[in-house]
Amino acid sequence: MGAVTAADRADRSPKQDRSRVTRQRLLEAAVACLAESGWAGSTVSVVAERAGVSRGAAQHHFPTREDLFTAAVEYVAEQRSTALRELPAQDRASVVAALVDLYTGPLFRAALHLWVAASNEPQLGSRVTELEARVGRETHRIAVQLLGADESRPGVRETIQGLLDMARGLGLANLLTDDGVRRERVVAQWTVLVEGALEN
Amino acid sequence: MGAVTAADRADRSPKQDRSRVTRQRLLEAAVACLAESGWAGSTVSVVAERAGVSRGAAQHHFPTREDLFTAAVEYVAEQRSTALRELPAQDRASVVAALVDLYTGPLFRAALHLWVAASNEPQLGSRVTELEARVGRETHRIAVQLLGADESRPGVRETIQGLLDMARGLGLANLLTDDGVRRERVVAQWTVLVEGALEN
Repeated sequence: MGAVTAADRADRSPKQDRSRVTRQRLLEAAVACLAESGWAGSTVSVVAERAGVSRGAAQHHFPTREDLFTAAVEYVAEQRSTALRELPAQDRASVVAALVDLYTGPLFRAALHLWVAASNEPQLGSRVTELEARVGRETHRIAVQLLGADESRPGVRETIQGLLDMARGLGLANLLTDDGVRRERVVAQWTVLVEGALEN
Repeated sequence: MGAVTAADRADRSPKQDRSRVTRQRLLEAAVACLAESGWAGSTVSVVAERAGVSRGAAQHHFPTREDLFTAAVEYVAEQRSTALRELPAQDRASVVAALVDLYTGPLFRAALHLWVAASNEPQLGSRVTELEARVGRETHRIAVQLLGADESRPGVRETIQGLLDMARGLGLANLLTDDGVRRERVVAQWTVLVEGALEN
């Protein structure tokens, strides 16, 4: 069962296509559900109904609740990473703004609910920890590349890590109220500080 | 029913003292419970048992679950603010470290659970939003004072806001795993950036 090749994809039967579409609909419904209702309100049944899929079909794709929601957060995180990597070359201020934007939408909200639930639910803990580490490393890699940063220079790696930590904190500050006006000013100032640190 | 004066306190009856002690025990138990078990696992009954107080006495002090847990997070936040304000004068690196420490202990964990629950529970939402704004303003005020920052200068206010946002993001990164080693390096580098911005 190696990697899927272009030939495999071309040969895919209508049945496989339907299965893939069903899977995607479930994943997208799961992220939306988690973002809106939190972990306590997010079950396989609720997501199946939202996706217009039978509960049996949902369980065929995702045997457990944990399978469904960790896969959903990972799927959407990968979509976001792909979109980021495909951004055209642009100035550092725009890159910082795009990175901060990652933490203010429904994906961050969904991931936050999963993350917080994982801190109290042992069956979720190790899976979310691993997922979070993977997504975090990938986001850091993309940030370094988009910012054109040279991590061999002292302090550069930690500057970018701190920037992503700040973006995460800004996401949290945006959870209950629209924090956009304040956020814009904070991001403008820290863009100046980060640019200075990357150029020194 | 004006402010409590020293004379009132001296006159306080043993019954009032017992009531105050009961209230404190409930508040401390509520924060510990929220930090360990999250919102779903935190009820007035669980907290009353943990505090060694009858459920009736707990409900006398806090008629609803929302009353108990918002009061608990506010109580502990005030204790932390008082402790911060009483810190002796020290260098900015120590101040930054003390500020970041605010976001890595049980208080942050408890507040995070309350915060995330509030994003899905209307009866909690407005109260937590207001509490969070109050605690946030107070933390900002203390940070400005301890860092000896002049907010009339351009960018200083946003530098400190971003620092506190970063601290919040570091707290989130510490939720599932001990992130202490990475955090120490990030804080060291951001201290350099903050010092530079405050002195320019």
